[in-house]
Amino acid sequence: MSGVDYRQAGVDIDAGNEAVRRIKALARQTYTSGVLSGVGSFGGLFGLDTSVSDPVLVASADGVGTKLKVAFLAGVHDTVGADLVNHCVNDILVQGARPLFFLDYLATGALAPEVVEQIVTGVARACTANGCALLGGETAEMPGFYAAGEYDVAGFIVGLVSRGGIVDGRAITPGDRLVALPSSGLHTNGYSLARHIAFDVLGLDVRSHVAEIGTTVGDALLWPHKSYLRAVEPLLASGRIKGMAHITGGGITENLPRVLPDGLSFSLDRRSWTIPPVFAWLQAAGGVPDAEMFRAFNMGVGMILVCAPGDADGVIADVRAGGEQAWHLGEVIGADGHA
Amino acid sequence: MSGVDYRQAGVDIDAGNEAVRRIKALARQTYTSGVLSGVGSFGGLFGLDTSVSDPVLVASADGVGTKLKVAFLAGVHDTVGADLVNHCVNDILVQGARPLFFLDYLATGALAPEVVEQIVTGVARACTANGCALLGGETAEMPGFYAAGEYDVAGFIVGLVSRGGIVDGRAITPGDRLVALPSSGLHTNGYSLARHIAFDVLGLDVRSHVAEIGTTVGDALLWPHKSYLRAVEPLLASGRIKGMAHITGGGITENLPRVLPDGLSFSLDRRSWTIPPVFAWLQAAGGVPDAEMFRAFNMGVGMILVCAPGDADGVIADVRAGGEQAWHLGEVIGADGHA
Repeated sequence: MSGVDYRQAGVDIDAGNEAVRRIKALARQTYTSGVLSGVGSFGGLFGLDTSVSDPVLVASADGVGTKLKVAFLAGVHDTVGADLVNHCVNDILVQGARPLFFLDYLATGALAPEVVEQIVTGVARACTANGCALLGGETAEMPGFYAAGEYDVAGFIVGLVSRGGIVDGRAITPGDRLVALPSSGLHTNGYSLARHIAFDVLGLDVRSHVAEIGTTVGDALLWPHKSYLRAVEPLLASGRIKGMAHITGGGITENLPRVLPDGLSFSLDRRSWTIPPVFAWLQAAGGVPDAEMFRAFNMGVGMILVCAPGDADGVIADVRAGGEQAWHLGEVIGADGHA
Repeated sequence: MSGVDYRQAGVDIDAGNEAVRRIKALARQTYTSGVLSGVGSFGGLFGLDTSVSDPVLVASADGVGTKLKVAFLAGVHDTVGADLVNHCVNDILVQGARPLFFLDYLATGALAPEVVEQIVTGVARACTANGCALLGGETAEMPGFYAAGEYDVAGFIVGLVSRGGIVDGRAITPGDRLVALPSSGLHTNGYSLARHIAFDVLGLDVRSHVAEIGTTVGDALLWPHKSYLRAVEPLLASGRIKGMAHITGGGITENLPRVLPDGLSFSLDRRSWTIPPVFAWLQAAGGVPDAEMFRAFNMGVGMILVCAPGDADGVIADVRAGGEQAWHLGEVIGADGHA
């Protein structure tokens, strides 16, 4: 009987080692002062800054979802890395935390070191932009699991906040104002519906130019998820932010209530912003009802800040001073429907 | 034109919410005193015990690999959750860290809340056994991505060690002893090769009884990855453990060198243990050379502790006193091949 080796069984340990070598070089560029040892160790070591009083760790896990299918079609693999990091950064930012470190999980059918390098390049670039170390990760070759050229990625982030600085929405009352920060596109949600409309209903491909959105389907759907860290971080110390909601799967409809105390609701001024063309185009092409759109997509609103009525103008001015847009989106209302 | 909604596009937000409800109940059972808020928040909050001086966080990410395919064939979904947690616990244990919290990423083609519940039941049970809180996670429905009934899972762990308690192998010298702790089976590595041999070469299925291993293929291949926390934790404070290697992908061949200082190598006493029947059976059936077996599988050695010659007997006795097995596996040698 002739012998079976690991490579014949579909796993290439040498390609894995080559991928790890490239990842290490990229990760090293993201290292902050906390990193004691990173990629390549069994676990990554991060020394905590003990000057933060009553330290609370905030952690989150996320994926990119079926946005990856668009990346496969377009052959573009670096934007999804940024999507992953920025999504995670926003998820802990809404509780008042600054990122410390990030780890990724990348699973593929057959390891192509150059594709791994592109993905991790995007991860590393976004980590650097957010002052967050890429501390480790797992790259798994799983033959027979993912289609040729396909992969899945997940990200894990850990951030730090002083207990007194936790933002949890507890102090929100009727009449508080909602301040919106714009999304940069679909971010990482609604892609099953968007792909269905673009590719199945309309029969387009990633290279198709769409007049309504002024670009190709691929460009419009791959625009990276935005990080709100730089815009929101300067506001945190002031204590004016009572709550924040990152608008992801479930849209404003499901994410804003997560930060509101029980019994409170919200009212949006639908004339306060123009729905970006990519959403209007998808809605018209798919004949999707408004309620469904607002549950599947962010509709142009990537982050919502909640503050007292007297603070809203100042919060908006501060965000704008940092070069980001912001506007009065609506207000918090009580069970009786009144602000 | 008739409208398209999210459910027609393959994503069921209600099934997702039901899955999250079940996960929350399971996660709650794992909460330790550090947990301030867990599953359901944007990020999970964990208050750090500030009595640990010079705290260092140790983080790791892992998957279960193609062992999942065996779980799909057997229709057993709770053992892989334990695999995920225990693998992560061991990866940070080797640097001296105790686990604080764990997050999971679960991606599937179509959400079946009862399968999600089984997976997370395994995760939660192993978290509780390791004193580790299940702090959060992401459950992603990705239609068209995973085959019907299939999924991928990844785990992410954060642990804590005092800077002075970090185990990093730096003090290892020639002559130091290798103490082995037994694996409980394949753990989570070598499954592409094992599946190829069992299912393709031998044409067996998960229900096939194999005389050489005294059980079914499914049972033998699904046995959960063992956690070494309880066996090793009592040894850490004594300072006798100079280095530890968790034997995962790449086997002893690639994992033991990760903890040895540059220029050092090792010698194993191959007569010190009997290769467990599952590996002997796979090797014979696949005609796999020894070197390949030792690179693909743990070969019965799940964890290796490195200590000074005079400490080895005491370390083994202490591990055994805790109800775990341990034996003299070999020693560290210099570049000249001498201990």
